Amino acid sequence: MKTRAAVAWEANKPLSIEEVELDSPKAGEVLVEIKATGVCHTDAYTLSGLDSEGKFPCILGHEGAGIVREVGAGVTSVKAGDHIIPLYTPECRQCKTCLSQRSNLCTAIRSTQGQGMMPDGTSRFSCDSPNKPLWHYMGCSTFSNFTVLPEIAVAKVREDAPFDKICYIGCGVTTGIGAVVYTAKVWPGANVVVFGLGGIGLNVIQGARMVGADKIVGVDLNPAKAEMAKKFGMTHFVNPDEVGRDKVVQAIQDLTDGGADFSFECVGNVNTMRQALECCHRGWGTSVIIGVAPSGTEISTRPFQLVTGRNWRGSAFGGARGRTDVPKIVDWYMEGKIDIDSLITHTMPLEQINHAFDLMHEGKSIRSVVVY
Amino acid sequence: MKTRAAVAWEANKPLSIEEVELDSPKAGEVLVEIKATGVCHTDAYTLSGLDSEGKFPCILGHEGAGIVREVGAGVTSVKAGDHIIPLYTPECRQCKTCLSQRSNLCTAIRSTQGQGMMPDGTSRFSCDSPNKPLWHYMGCSTFSNFTVLPEIAVAKVREDAPFDKICYIGCGVTTGIGAVVYTAKVWPGANVVVFGLGGIGLNVIQGARMVGADKIVGVDLNPAKAEMAKKFGMTHFVNPDEVGRDKVVQAIQDLTDGGADFSFECVGNVNTMRQALECCHRGWGTSVIIGVAPSGTEISTRPFQLVTGRNWRGSAFGGARGRTDVPKIVDWYMEGKIDIDSLITHTMPLEQINHAFDLMHEGKSIRSVVVY
Repeated sequence: MKTRAAVAWEANKPLSIEEVELDSPKAGEVLVEIKATGVCHTDAYTLSGLDSEGKFPCILGHEGAGIVREVGAGVTSVKAGDHIIPLYTPECRQCKTCLSQRSNLCTAIRSTQGQGMMPDGTSRFSCDSPNKPLWHYMGCSTFSNFTVLPEIAVAKVREDAPFDKICYIGCGVTTGIGAVVYTAKVWPGANVVVFGLGGIGLNVIQGARMVGADKIVGVDLNPAKAEMAKKFGMTHFVNPDEVGRDKVVQAIQDLTDGGADFSFECVGNVNTMRQALECCHRGWGTSVIIGVAPSGTEISTRPFQLVTGRNWRGSAFGGARGRTDVPKIVDWYMEGKIDIDSLITHTMPLEQINHAFDLMHEGKSIRSVVVY
Repeated sequence: MKTRAAVAWEANKPLSIEEVELDSPKAGEVLVEIKATGVCHTDAYTLSGLDSEGKFPCILGHEGAGIVREVGAGVTSVKAGDHIIPLYTPECRQCKTCLSQRSNLCTAIRSTQGQGMMPDGTSRFSCDSPNKPLWHYMGCSTFSNFTVLPEIAVAKVREDAPFDKICYIGCGVTTGIGAVVYTAKVWPGANVVVFGLGGIGLNVIQGARMVGADKIVGVDLNPAKAEMAKKFGMTHFVNPDEVGRDKVVQAIQDLTDGGADFSFECVGNVNTMRQALECCHRGWGTSVIIGVAPSGTEISTRPFQLVTGRNWRGSAFGGARGRTDVPKIVDWYMEGKIDIDSLITHTMPLEQINHAFDLMHEGKSIRSVVVY
């Protein structure tokens, strides 16, 4: 079939809207009509050419929501008409990692996904002229009105949830809220510190509020971000330029009676990662790295920080199991436990997708959503 | 009263055996007759002058066992005649850390202990000529036949346990076994990797065996240490000089089907700390730092190692609560669940304590014990 898609022909060039060819789903795959997709920093990162796994030409996009239109042979867990969220972190429930019950980082299709292919080692997308394959991206390629996904990479969700909001659960919302709920398991009454008040940081904050955290301290160089953060549950704001950039740890320890029970790094900077660890409470404080640091950079600290009881870990896709936990987060949204609407600052048709990248680069959006 | 003690008059000089003055226990303190004490690397480290908290003249020693001979006002949890192990990590059960139930690092007397004093800010030890205070060490000073300890810094233990063996539980045994049992909570069937096959490493190994670990991989540059490690439960040995020092991580991943469930660093080297983290299994592997690295050195890694699910933490005194857990470890020894006898390679009177330091420096002992 033909479908309309935004094609990334090469790094660092605007996407171009094309009619592309999409093959039918093979065994274990499903055809999905994407109804909405967020535009995320990770799409921009790959488009910039810095992502060593980036492979062009491709169809970007990994934060979508849509409807199953056709299923391939052997597919049993979803059927045509089901509403789904595509999963760049699939959940096969059969690999060593899924069966460990200790991680969400399913490895069933990792190698082909990283190469822009479906599990059989081929692409479903192609372009008639010059008649060559277009690569998949993060197993999702939601910048296409129709896409093909492995069955294990779709989360079936309730049908009354609006696509143009729950698409954000496909990445940013789950990454932030999941880090609180699934990775860190923040307890009620905990003191939580969040470095970076962008979209991920705001979702960490509302996750912390949802589970009953006590103090929720936000740290950001931009005081303009504090207002929205307060709406999401931030109780205290630390501006490193006000307290002194080398006194951030002390300022947080003063605010939290000795240190954070949990800290979350949502900046992607190895210096704030160190501060996030060291502002944790002696004895038990846990710091969770969410942000993606520039390639080649390293985190460091004195081992004494760990020997005296701090814990350093990370979170990918919020530690959430895609098919099991993502539908629950959709429920939390529908029940009013979390706010997504305020975070979606722009909505636009596919034809304006390059504008969404511009808004992001200029810091003018929290999340832009493309609706088909 | 007078007591015989080994005094460290200054850094980097042999200890000298003296009759020193010991004041009676004040309120909340107990007088203990030390019956045996281990000589630990930490004593040597402080004696070397490198320990920034080292304060001379002092009476070193922190790995003892003995009998309560007198109690000060208000002491209720022990009485004269009780057998005890002194605790350099006390357990007050009332401070924020104890009440957190998430850490063993009781802070009740931390500041005075770090300054070589009892909780009231004075020393019980003094020397007639030139009549000046001798400082306590780690709140224990077990290189004295009699010593005074805070009530919260003694663990009451069973009376049939031999002092010249259970003194080792006062530090090394608990540090190793506790890191497995209390800090890491190693599960049955886990694959465990231990860097450094000295006394602590051997105790980690027997802790891992006790809790039912599957593979127990030891890593050491000295193949002569493998034999004893095998006796304690090591199933595989990796010599970095044989596999290539830059291929240690790969060798361990190959041995453990993708990486360790738990690794323990018992060397005190920031490079092996990094290897210990990176040899952990993607998704859930936890690395525990036990060794003490040279001051000023730092650990580092790519944040990707944590974001993909590895966990970096540390352990002090094995995460064991002194008064609650140490008596259980004495039971485990008495029940034959762990071996201490094979680790105590030398026993000597106090007069030969400098020989114990020599043996340690020459790598000729696992543990030397002084008996009074």
